[in-house]
Amino acid sequence: MTDRSTLQDLSAPPFATRHIGPSDAGRARMLEVVGYESTADLLAVAVPEAIRTRGPLNLPEAAGEAEALAELRALAARNRVLTPMIGLGYHDTITPGVVLRNVLENPGWYTAYTPYQPEISQGRLEALLNFQTVVSDLTGLDVAGASLLDEATAAAEAMTLARRASKVKADVFVVDADALPQTKAVLATRAEPLGITLVESDLAGDLPECFGVLVQYPGASGRVASFRALAERAHAAGALLVASADLLALTLLEPPGEQGADIAVGSSQRFGVPLGYGGPHAAYMAVREGLQRQMPGRLVGVSVDADGRTAYRLALQTREQHIRREKATSNICTAQVLLAVMASMYAVYHGPDGLRRIAQRAHRHAAVLAAGLREGGVEIVHDEFFDTVLARVPGRAEHVVAAAAERGVNLRLADADHVGVACDEKTVVGHLRAVWEAFGVPGVVVEDLDRATSDAIPAHLQRTSGFLTHPVFHSHRSETAMLRYLRRLQDKDVALDRSMIPLGSCTMKLNATTEMEPVTWPEFAAIHPFAPAEQAEGYAELIATLEGWLAEVTGYDRVSIQPNAGSQGEFAGLLAIRSYHRSRGEAGRDVCLIPSSAHGTNAASAVMAGMRVVVVACDESGNVDLGDLAAKIDKHRDALAAIMVTYPSTHGVYEETIVEICERVHEAGGQVYVDGANLNALVGLARLGEFGADVSHLNLHKTFCIPHGGGGPGVGPVAVKAHLAEHLPAHVSAAPYGSAGILPISWAYVRMMGGDGLRQATEQAILSANYLARRLAPHYPVLYTGRDGLVAHECIVDLRQITKETGVTVDDVAKRLIDYGFHAPTMSFPVAGTLMIEPTESEDLAELDRFADAMIAIRDEIAKVASGEYDKADNPLRNAPHTAECLTADEWAHPYSRAVAAYPVPGLRDDKYWPPVRRIDQAYGDRNLVCSCPPMEAYED
Amino acid sequence: MTDRSTLQDLSAPPFATRHIGPSDAGRARMLEVVGYESTADLLAVAVPEAIRTRGPLNLPEAAGEAEALAELRALAARNRVLTPMIGLGYHDTITPGVVLRNVLENPGWYTAYTPYQPEISQGRLEALLNFQTVVSDLTGLDVAGASLLDEATAAAEAMTLARRASKVKADVFVVDADALPQTKAVLATRAEPLGITLVESDLAGDLPECFGVLVQYPGASGRVASFRALAERAHAAGALLVASADLLALTLLEPPGEQGADIAVGSSQRFGVPLGYGGPHAAYMAVREGLQRQMPGRLVGVSVDADGRTAYRLALQTREQHIRREKATSNICTAQVLLAVMASMYAVYHGPDGLRRIAQRAHRHAAVLAAGLREGGVEIVHDEFFDTVLARVPGRAEHVVAAAAERGVNLRLADADHVGVACDEKTVVGHLRAVWEAFGVPGVVVEDLDRATSDAIPAHLQRTSGFLTHPVFHSHRSETAMLRYLRRLQDKDVALDRSMIPLGSCTMKLNATTEMEPVTWPEFAAIHPFAPAEQAEGYAELIATLEGWLAEVTGYDRVSIQPNAGSQGEFAGLLAIRSYHRSRGEAGRDVCLIPSSAHGTNAASAVMAGMRVVVVACDESGNVDLGDLAAKIDKHRDALAAIMVTYPSTHGVYEETIVEICERVHEAGGQVYVDGANLNALVGLARLGEFGADVSHLNLHKTFCIPHGGGGPGVGPVAVKAHLAEHLPAHVSAAPYGSAGILPISWAYVRMMGGDGLRQATEQAILSANYLARRLAPHYPVLYTGRDGLVAHECIVDLRQITKETGVTVDDVAKRLIDYGFHAPTMSFPVAGTLMIEPTESEDLAELDRFADAMIAIRDEIAKVASGEYDKADNPLRNAPHTAECLTADEWAHPYSRAVAAYPVPGLRDDKYWPPVRRIDQAYGDRNLVCSCPPMEAYED
Repeated sequence: MTDRSTLQDLSAPPFATRHIGPSDAGRARMLEVVGYESTADLLAVAVPEAIRTRGPLNLPEAAGEAEALAELRALAARNRVLTPMIGLGYHDTITPGVVLRNVLENPGWYTAYTPYQPEISQGRLEALLNFQTVVSDLTGLDVAGASLLDEATAAAEAMTLARRASKVKADVFVVDADALPQTKAVLATRAEPLGITLVESDLAGDLPECFGVLVQYPGASGRVASFRALAERAHAAGALLVASADLLALTLLEPPGEQGADIAVGSSQRFGVPLGYGGPHAAYMAVREGLQRQMPGRLVGVSVDADGRTAYRLALQTREQHIRREKATSNICTAQVLLAVMASMYAVYHGPDGLRRIAQRAHRHAAVLAAGLREGGVEIVHDEFFDTVLARVPGRAEHVVAAAAERGVNLRLADADHVGVACDEKTVVGHLRAVWEAFGVPGVVVEDLDRATSDAIPAHLQRTSGFLTHPVFHSHRSETAMLRYLRRLQDKDVALDRSMIPLGSCTMKLNATTEMEPVTWPEFAAIHPFAPAEQAEGYAELIATLEGWLAEVTGYDRVSIQPNAGSQGEFAGLLAIRSYHRSRGEAGRDVCLIPSSAHGTNAASAVMAGMRVVVVACDESGNVDLGDLAAKIDKHRDALAAIMVTYPSTHGVYEETIVEICERVHEAGGQVYVDGANLNALVGLARLGEFGADVSHLNLHKTFCIPHGGGGPGVGPVAVKAHLAEHLPAHVSAAPYGSAGILPISWAYVRMMGGDGLRQATEQAILSANYLARRLAPHYPVLYTGRDGLVAHECIVDLRQITKETGVTVDDVAKRLIDYGFHAPTMSFPVAGTLMIEPTESEDLAELDRFADAMIAIRDEIAKVASGEYDKADNPLRNAPHTAECLTADEWAHPYSRAVAAYPVPGLRDDKYWPPVRRIDQAYGDRNLVCSCPPMEAYED
Repeated sequence: MTDRSTLQDLSAPPFATRHIGPSDAGRARMLEVVGYESTADLLAVAVPEAIRTRGPLNLPEAAGEAEALAELRALAARNRVLTPMIGLGYHDTITPGVVLRNVLENPGWYTAYTPYQPEISQGRLEALLNFQTVVSDLTGLDVAGASLLDEATAAAEAMTLARRASKVKADVFVVDADALPQTKAVLATRAEPLGITLVESDLAGDLPECFGVLVQYPGASGRVASFRALAERAHAAGALLVASADLLALTLLEPPGEQGADIAVGSSQRFGVPLGYGGPHAAYMAVREGLQRQMPGRLVGVSVDADGRTAYRLALQTREQHIRREKATSNICTAQVLLAVMASMYAVYHGPDGLRRIAQRAHRHAAVLAAGLREGGVEIVHDEFFDTVLARVPGRAEHVVAAAAERGVNLRLADADHVGVACDEKTVVGHLRAVWEAFGVPGVVVEDLDRATSDAIPAHLQRTSGFLTHPVFHSHRSETAMLRYLRRLQDKDVALDRSMIPLGSCTMKLNATTEMEPVTWPEFAAIHPFAPAEQAEGYAELIATLEGWLAEVTGYDRVSIQPNAGSQGEFAGLLAIRSYHRSRGEAGRDVCLIPSSAHGTNAASAVMAGMRVVVVACDESGNVDLGDLAAKIDKHRDALAAIMVTYPSTHGVYEETIVEICERVHEAGGQVYVDGANLNALVGLARLGEFGADVSHLNLHKTFCIPHGGGGPGVGPVAVKAHLAEHLPAHVSAAPYGSAGILPISWAYVRMMGGDGLRQATEQAILSANYLARRLAPHYPVLYTGRDGLVAHECIVDLRQITKETGVTVDDVAKRLIDYGFHAPTMSFPVAGTLMIEPTESEDLAELDRFADAMIAIRDEIAKVASGEYDKADNPLRNAPHTAECLTADEWAHPYSRAVAAYPVPGLRDDKYWPPVRRIDQAYGDRNLVCSCPPMEAYED
């Protein structure tokens, strides 16, 4: 009737328009440069027909941001937050508001990448060095890393470390009968494929011949006992002693290192990290001198920069799986950095006295609780404990636990006769009363009892050594001081809130605020992983829905979100393959084919899953060499367990032969594992499960918007076809649902994108990569292109010839990019001497152009080195990055100008990032290994 | 029995230890420097016995942070969030997550001070310039300011502006009968003391003789009508036309400027600012060319810096009340800057197309709603409307409103026969259905109706002119781009998250995260100010409790939190005095004595309250000259209404004579108004109401932790003795509870500090000020000290002699402090040529020392100017601040070194703030007034 718009016409633009960077006009411009009429035309050429899926994804229609938040609030409302006194390695804690808001809720921290470029990561490296200092001081051990995935997997890593370090031949590892149940379960999962026999023991009597012993300290039952004698026995027999220890307890208890432990592991969750229904939390590992080169995970070390200034960076990287590949002994990669930062800041804010007081308070509540129970005639199993009391109530345990729940408190149902009660930072007398009542012990007079009750830590186990003596743990005691410390560190770093982070294979896309918001709502954040299911119905639905959506996106039949990192997803998937073969009587199938271009974690995971790695060559286009594949299949036909490939390949190419590869492996009886690292090139266009794969892991922190957090958290769901579903392991991570606390992020992303939005994002990611490839191609050779010279969602620029001709290396380019305000692309992976660039769909055209312009300007600078205009040894590339300090020095001895160094392109005059240090000397740091806070004098010139 | 600690011993340290900066050791050090054994000893000398209160404050014992949050959650749970379709200038809106998290929840924005030091405020000045551009573009007027307190007070400011600008003698102001009720009420409050007669009119017929006319556009009833003819009539009669206009509507409607309005005012709330039960929100005012020098509030303008670079700063400051004092025509000071920033960012994020679509959508929903009601036989009063529909339901209005509430929707009960329904950004068809049902109109087929229904905006009123054409409104369309824009602006500024802001009289203390968190909880943020009381029980209790606590702290009998800025509190308090005198038949009492040292707002408020200002001299110590006071009292004995004093005085001194002053004024029949600006020197030590004052306003944004927000929000409660309680005006602000949405901040502060904590904070503030005074005294003369040379909570250092001897000005010192990383102290208030320093209790010793060291280092630099070592015209002080750009320029022509300019003290090498511009030319900007975003070319060199 009229020509005005209808309600439908006026709907809000979908979230996808905010998530996807380029506007329609920008897209048109990019298509023009790439040389296609439309995205559809581009895709028709770029993406092989053979893998394309038919039809749209079967997902709910995209919700708006407000709508998605409302749905999440409704889910959250279906979780019931009770006071969690269950213990078992998860404890209620107060996240200091200043840390919550300025770290966990601050994109400056949570969107940062792993600190592989240390010059732009000094802030988070300092935070992690603090973390290492906390762990090393509290455990009394020499070197601590930062960080691991959870206490149970950290214990498993300690087990394999012990096996490597011990000379004992027996493949036996002795586990404390009083270890946390989830630790036992994960150890079992890890031990089996490696041929390790686990022996459970009360550790009181003689040890069997073994390479290592794990003691829980305090025990899951709460019991506190010295293991000094145990350590001596273990050492005498050539075994290593691993203590799985509660960090807070160590403020009061004799530390593991002083009792003779070789390794300590544990969780830092109760240092201010929300429970989150099980995670994410940072686990720790510390070792005695001599074992540090064997440690899994990352290690921050102190070094110096080009001006001799103290600077931090990742140390001993040659140990890590991304370099050692099939020689690696651990597959840990993404590892809860954001949570380690939070835990470290908790220690910085409270200092040693504050931590000790928090521990004493939890202890005292437990002591008074136990006294009250005893007064009421309840038997307390252990007289010596830290914060956890085990009560014996024959036949009544279920009743007591139910009665406590009615009073708003969750207790641990240890068995039909025993109830565990754990006190923590938040415990108050009201909680004790509720517990007493639940046990049928009313009318306790707390003040009298408090006065009459002794502490329950034996004198000989009381800690006497100091800890956290470094000034950083004494200088930020007011909220104002803490706030400024956090800001100061944050300002040293480049994260996604400043500029594009074009990391090949790491997909640094938008982490939208709406996705992040629910993470810190108490209804998601404050749930204990072992809370009764009826208190977590919101979580249950969220998890089931998300698993279903991920199955739909990937074309698989079953998804499990338990693995809390990609590495754990890989491991779980390979275990499913292993179990599958065994179930068919083919236990001999243990060869895992891995192309030479694979991520290092693939090989490491295969080894962990008890497989033998056989490398398949790639041809010069970066594709799997089909001839070599055939040969390797032939050679290992009867032993073939699986092939692990990444798709699109790590070279950023859609291999046309993927379907054929799958067929050939299947023919030979093998299973196909497709690493989902590059799923951002597939979502909505192709489904892994449809074109031949049997199992994959996904990286929710790459494709599904969980922020990188400076190196974690991650979530690495494993997705399988139906025949593998029953073979998925139940215990690859400590918590039943892994890092459940951050699943709302991916849920919100899928919910707000819908099938169309997800597909559009993929299309844009491909277009953007090709746009950058086209813009850079005249200046740098682009490696590994597919049909019509197209790439998938990332592109590799080759500097090898340039380096040969000019001496300018990828490192020089990467560091010079810092002067232009950018984080470098992925360096020398998968090919040494190259840079791999993944722009993602979230960068708009202006930012893509700013990056391309920077790369091109750098190429011009290289040309000046080639032409001799710039000195080969003293030029803006070699000296990059330039600090404000070096640029404002009274002397300037370089043959190029200060302005060229500082502002090579005009836009920098409006928006300039100043790195806090110049180029860092990696070798110096490894030669002079320092992995905890250096004394203040070290910072002086 | 044992020697271990009890539960009591182990309680968590109170929040006060986080709020108060110095540790016990720090305090001991400071006392040593100041020369006292204990704080008590210091206070015994510093604070006059005559004003000291006896005994502790009667406040609940301090709660821990987690406990306070839990209590706030319980209060929040007692508010019920219904869909607010009440309208009346308050509309539901979606705050973009990226703006919510990175502005409203980001201390980098919310802890900033008013941008009086423009070199360190370029980020928020740019945001405010964007705000002005939005307002100017949308209203079609030449100049817009940033910003005002609420729509109603903005309308009142427009009224007085019109009165000043019009030559018409009649003191009559005509008000649209369809104006918002709260606007009418506030206009009435403001008009009466100024002798203005308000005439309500439907504006259809002839105008009475008047200086101005206010039209509501669209009307409160929703009606949309042209006022072009009205404007012509008004102008013909010499009156000014004020349009109170809905910013969102202006994206579709012919703007006020094009219809002939001289002034437009309104709220920017619906541009993404939460309802917050009435505030805080930024109001706007725009005027046609020629009126800008008469505008109240702040105006951001464009100028250039010392290097000719485009730079922003506050323009035409000589108009403002802090300079014009009793000549000022408005008392506006703190003015909702944070909310103006949010509104501007909403416009930046949506751009003109997005805003238009949001408006169209609200409009279409209203059109379809009206059509549905008509279909159901309900009469719709106006055929032409934007988003609000007025339905006529004789005798049924209450029933309809109740039925809607049952369906989760709040409607407006206009009167017994009329119901208003306002649609907004969040309205969806489900809401329409609920409304139809409430009206008894079920079964509407929306799609058909939508197709069949025309728009309800008349063609002749449709907007044809463009708006928001500047690139800034087109460049940040993805969340990633928006996030980076916010970060970039934030990084240009210095706020409390970087360093101390030692502003005398502004009390820039910690704004703790725990205090801030509840502000953005939906249960506080999403309540409409006119929601039924039974839906806001949580608010009611919070407000009553807070008012009670504030009464206890100040020693008054009644507190009202309605005034949404200190200026409004002053005005309310003076009105109470005025009303009191009138009630006693003493209407002739209209003289307000104000000491020469007073804040400018005092005089402006007195004028607004219809009083005559008589200035009382101060003696050379800065105290009220008792002789002059006696003389002035004598002279005006019968006309004496009140004295307004600040206590401690604006000179930072506890005047010993305050009790005597109060007595003398009372004797003469006057009332005593004590400005609460310096309450941070009294809380817990002295109570205003006890030592003779009758009325005060408090600044919750100074003393009670509401963050300064870059110049607002503020809350300025008025507190009175019992005899004035019934005389408090009911409508000084638009919303019944003013800026209710931020009251949880002050509630949390008092709840977590308790009486002891509050007193300790005051004690520390006094100690810290005296510590700084002692440290600086050997280098700069300290003005106005009390007994034993002590100051109160701030100190004034005198540069007049230094300036005379060396030419170095307070400006030079202030700008040089930027190079040291500090915001300058208050400049030239209350005495020209001085700096007033208030450290507050929240700064720790390290930061106080860093500041003192900077001031002392600057004194050494001044000495070098004096000695001739530095050139008088070319030295680090005169050239400050130094940008990175000027310091890295290839040429350096100054006689001092780059390093001296950049790093005058070594600590700066670890933590350096780089200002984005050099010193800004104030005069240039005022001569070449530009108050909206300059074209991009302006930024080119």
